[in-house]
Amino acid sequence: MKVIRCRDKAEVGKAACAYTLQAMMQPDAHIAITGGSTPKEMYEYLVPLVCDNPAFSHVQYYNFDEIPQVGEHEGLTMQALRSLFFTPANIDEKQIHILNEKNYMECEAALAAVGYLDYVVLGLGKDGHFCGNLPHTCTFDDDTHAVACDLNPTLYNRIKFLSGSDENKMPDAYVTMGPRTIMRSKQIVMIVNGKAKAEIVKRALWGEITAECPSSIFQLHPNFILILDAEAASELTL
Amino acid sequence: MKVIRCRDKAEVGKAACAYTLQAMMQPDAHIAITGGSTPKEMYEYLVPLVCDNPAFSHVQYYNFDEIPQVGEHEGLTMQALRSLFFTPANIDEKQIHILNEKNYMECEAALAAVGYLDYVVLGLGKDGHFCGNLPHTCTFDDDTHAVACDLNPTLYNRIKFLSGSDENKMPDAYVTMGPRTIMRSKQIVMIVNGKAKAEIVKRALWGEITAECPSSIFQLHPNFILILDAEAASELTL
Amino acid sequence: MKVIRCRDKAEVGKAACAYTLQAMMQPDAHIAITGGSTPKEMYEYLVPLVCDNPAFSHVQYYNFDEIPQVGEHEGLTMQALRSLFFTPANIDEKQIHILNEKNYMECEAALAAVGYLDYVVLGLGKDGHFCGNLPHTCTFDDDTHAVACDLNPTLYNRIKFLSGSDENKMPDAYVTMGPRTIMRSKQIVMIVNGKAKAEIVKRALWGEITAECPSSIFQLHPNFILILDAEAASELTL
Amino acid sequence: MKVIRCRDKAEVGKAACAYTLQAMMQPDAHIAITGGSTPKEMYEYLVPLVCDNPAFSHVQYYNFDEIPQVGEHEGLTMQALRSLFFTPANIDEKQIHILNEKNYMECEAALAAVGYLDYVVLGLGKDGHFCGNLPHTCTFDDDTHAVACDLNPTLYNRIKFLSGSDENKMPDAYVTMGPRTIMRSKQIVMIVNGKAKAEIVKRALWGEITAECPSSIFQLHPNFILILDAEAASELTL
Repeated sequence: MKVIRCRDKAEVGKAACAYTLQAMMQPDAHIAITGGSTPKEMYEYLVPLVCDNPAFSHVQYYNFDEIPQVGEHEGLTMQALRSLFFTPANIDEKQIHILNEKNYMECEAALAAVGYLDYVVLGLGKDGHFCGNLPHTCTFDDDTHAVACDLNPTLYNRIKFLSGSDENKMPDAYVTMGPRTIMRSKQIVMIVNGKAKAEIVKRALWGEITAECPSSIFQLHPNFILILDAEAASELTL
Repeated sequence: MKVIRCRDKAEVGKAACAYTLQAMMQPDAHIAITGGSTPKEMYEYLVPLVCDNPAFSHVQYYNFDEIPQVGEHEGLTMQALRSLFFTPANIDEKQIHILNEKNYMECEAALAAVGYLDYVVLGLGKDGHFCGNLPHTCTFDDDTHAVACDLNPTLYNRIKFLSGSDENKMPDAYVTMGPRTIMRSKQIVMIVNGKAKAEIVKRALWGEITAECPSSIFQLHPNFILILDAEAASELTL
Repeated sequence: MKVIRCRDKAEVGKAACAYTLQAMMQPDAHIAITGGSTPKEMYEYLVPLVCDNPAFSHVQYYNFDEIPQVGEHEGLTMQALRSLFFTPANIDEKQIHILNEKNYMECEAALAAVGYLDYVVLGLGKDGHFCGNLPHTCTFDDDTHAVACDLNPTLYNRIKFLSGSDENKMPDAYVTMGPRTIMRSKQIVMIVNGKAKAEIVKRALWGEITAECPSSIFQLHPNFILILDAEAASELTL
Repeated sequence: MKVIRCRDKAEVGKAACAYTLQAMMQPDAHIAITGGSTPKEMYEYLVPLVCDNPAFSHVQYYNFDEIPQVGEHEGLTMQALRSLFFTPANIDEKQIHILNEKNYMECEAALAAVGYLDYVVLGLGKDGHFCGNLPHTCTFDDDTHAVACDLNPTLYNRIKFLSGSDENKMPDAYVTMGPRTIMRSKQIVMIVNGKAKAEIVKRALWGEITAECPSSIFQLHPNFILILDAEAASELTL
């Protein structure tokens, strides 16, 4: 694990942009990218560089999880990725590999055919989750799989909240690449900002390796890079 | 995981030699190698190529475990590595980093200073162990550590047997790099020969990921290569 | 030779920024960068990404030529590089390796000690020159060397013009890395914009290899990338 | 240029074998290899490692020149390569890309389609030639081309001698990759043995860069490795 300590969110975004560009410039560039608010600054640096840039026309992009929305063409993750990156960067639809509730069972075979992912950039949940791998929903040997949204009340409420608190939009299940899928990526970058994540950063990356804190598995990845702002790093003694 | 199926032990040795040479030819080459009978053919191919070859004078070698022997200068692993490789290949003592009962607590810091291991070649025990990480002696977050030989009767008898059935030579504890140490290696090659290993190959690399079968953790390494002869692969359906 | 055809100067700047970042993200990053007006857009993309970014704190920067100015602390190239890049990107002085009339004789030994340059980005002169290697001033086996400004009237007038048409500021000689120095770089990116360069692009990169058109030597480099806008590419039939 | 000084021919063979294996273990491995007596020891180390080894089944082999023989199915170079390497190492015919008098005009396009050669290992002639590029038969911008055997008496006598002094077997022309083809290779290894080559080693690699000594062009390649025995290095002062 390599830890990069930044002053603030802007520096985190810059460093994450640098790693993502590096991955995008390799001849093999099958990369999974993340939505949410954490990578906002990363995309602000990335978009002008990537937009209409022929140096990146070979990159293949993947979403690593998806929360479908009843009655909508695409789920929450793809909506976020389009808004943050695919649309402003004018990415060709042929470069986008959509994971959703219809095709998730073919995901592992499709990734195996290209040698698995070359790069993933992801965030860290306050409960230690990454992608859709939450405590009590996964084991470390899970591949890409679906999770029933009524598995437990915490999960149900979380998905309902993400669905705009609208039960009519809530899916029966969401899909996600599993710990084994993500661990097979040749490089993994995790970006974390803010005081509220300081405790989980310490517990997930320096504590016990257990499926109850799914991100703890990254302690075992040989090319894992953790990019933190000063607040997220505030509990660390190193 | 990449699986390489060979016809016999000689082919396994050749393929393992090829991977080991590749690692040895990189500018950064901190590699841990294994004793025992499984790698015998690998060393037979390796020794004439490496002996007095200036292309390999930068390689740094590590033993990943050691069973000390009372009254002897070096333990069983170093004795085996010297006999199989270091002596016939005329490796300079400056290139050999000895792990033993006196220095194991400094091992992680020493590896961290060089960016951890670049390459490990290891075997698979019939109980799923690798290095000195046996079922019920380790957890996945163990770094380099010592294991008391009287932890349980099975372990006691195993170490006694390896010590020539001579209790006077038995150490109080043996030392080993842990699962976290080995998982940090950029590449891991596991070689397995023989019918007697067919069942554990299937269970360890395709079964549940659990510390009760320590080698199962390699399912989560992004650059893990499994080299099998036909007998060791005989239980696989792929 | 890889040819990247862009629509306009902005796209050329983006593509050159991408290649330069890639070089800057390698563990070994000894790079020589160029002044002048051609790389202006490249630096506009590069500066916000590099400024105070810890991912680039290991990069070592070199100027590949210098025209000293009498009575001034630094010559024209360093003045340009500071204005375009080093100052706005807040590059630490320890990362900047200045070539000038006092130290040019030590340049080759210093580069040899770090394995020569990893990357050079440079422009193309209308006479086929690169760096300070003009027709009739160099041979292909020249290393870093000094060129007397009164070698011929064309050269004299050129240096006088660059010195603000002020003979009092004109140096006796300028210094430059030679064809052999630059060819030893592991990767070379040449950026060319504008209609006025269309003819020399064709002649230098597709015509005879001769010291009378110094850039023609790049036809023989295994990792040479030519980035052109539509105007600079307008004479090409490919 | 990296110079590797060995004690004798056996050490040269070992070092060349190491570099060749490294190239063969890369995912992209389009390599051109050499016949003649110089690489004999290299192939002795290489053959047992490569024979039936699945780690090398992706390697694509090329001959870089050919002297056809009237009435024979294959020319002198392919005959030598089969005897030295392809036959004892049991290389699949699909991995062998034969250059000959019928297909040499398609050679550059075929190489361009795979990104040019990744690796070439070659020898040095006493007149400074490499491949079929002899003084007065080539310019540095030559691609793969044919050379008429009656171009000059020296050449005529040389080809006649190589054809077993049998004029009936002599071809009208031989074919060779040119300086530009070979320079585009990502890595070039030159092996040289014996006192008789000591003077040309010094002249070609440290002297003037001129087409009258074709190998002098390698002074300009960024990844050129020169492997010498003690006799071939005896004129060097470094």
